[in-house]
Amino acid sequence: MIRFAVLGHLAHTADDFSLNDMPGGAGRLDVLCRCVTTSLFLSHGMRRDVEVYLVLLGPPDPPRTILFSGENVRYLSPDERSAGSLIKKALDIHAGDEFRQSTPGVYVRKGGLEDLLSGHRFVLLDESGTDVRTVSSLPENYLLSDHMNLTEGEIMQTGDLPVFSVGPRALHADHTITVLQNELDRRAAGWTS
Amino acid sequence: MIRFAVLGHLAHTADDFSLNDMPGGAGRLDVLCRCVTTSLFLSHGMRRDVEVYLVLLGPPDPPRTILFSGENVRYLSPDERSAGSLIKKALDIHAGDEFRQSTPGVYVRKGGLEDLLSGHRFVLLDESGTDVRTVSSLPENYLLSDHMNLTEGEIMQTGDLPVFSVGPRALHADHTITVLQNELDRRAAGWTS
Repeated sequence: MIRFAVLGHLAHTADDFSLNDMPGGAGRLDVLCRCVTTSLFLSHGMRRDVEVYLVLLGPPDPPRTILFSGENVRYLSPDERSAGSLIKKALDIHAGDEFRQSTPGVYVRKGGLEDLLSGHRFVLLDESGTDVRTVSSLPENYLLSDHMNLTEGEIMQTGDLPVFSVGPRALHADHTITVLQNELDRRAAGWTS
Repeated sequence: MIRFAVLGHLAHTADDFSLNDMPGGAGRLDVLCRCVTTSLFLSHGMRRDVEVYLVLLGPPDPPRTILFSGENVRYLSPDERSAGSLIKKALDIHAGDEFRQSTPGVYVRKGGLEDLLSGHRFVLLDESGTDVRTVSSLPENYLLSDHMNLTEGEIMQTGDLPVFSVGPRALHADHTITVLQNELDRRAAGWTS
């Protein structure tokens, strides 16, 4: 199982925004929507072996984590509004300490980075890290930040994680995921160059 | 200058759609919007040396070509609605045989693939092609199809173009652009792996 987790520092934790204004009213939720799409979609199919964790840290009730399971997700199209709509529905149900399903393959719980790191061992994706192409064996779990840098607290929490980079320029989180998926695809298919 | 051109087989050629329904009412214009974003955006900046050509082939008056210039574009944010809004404005002005500017850095003209190919020499990006990582010198101009395959007529028109692939799996057009940009970034920065 491949897992991508994205920290949404401003992303709203209630169903209090319009799908027509996800960059503003939802706290750059558009970034997280694109991360869902690029993590899960192939040209004509889904990546069933991928999970996406969105860590929502904005108002009014942070943190919340929303999980999209590539194996089980339904009603998801590649456009931003589609992912945004499923996130709205997830934020509309009561969240407890364990994941609860809101729509098929989409789940929500209380908790954020600390709970995430206690469940799986992650690698941080950041342009300062080791080139992924030079890593002999790529791990399964990848953590990214949205358009904002990690906070001091998050740096403390992630200080012992390996840091990998997909390239020399600072990219959007969704673009970083796309490049990483390509590297995984190449290795799975035996493309050696 | 790097150029990406994307064929939008169903993409509407009039301002007759809602930004709330770009996948349906606008003929999968969401695909083209994401191609604009990934072609032009870095994490905190724009790729000023990139142009994006969207070839709109849907009703009511195809073909139309919309050009986004990374050097000159303004009022563009990374979300799909932002690119869609600028495309709507471009479709709202009279299009002639030459590009006319609709908003800063966005231009529209009549004409489609034939005009595109007469202006620049393109390489086709398709999963059947030669692995880009093995190509010693990458060209400047890349042609992609949206979610649909090339038509028989388009295959005839592009039959003599080189075909490059970014990886072993069939990806969305925007994801393909992202991976190609990464390969270009790596070469420009002297990353040799």
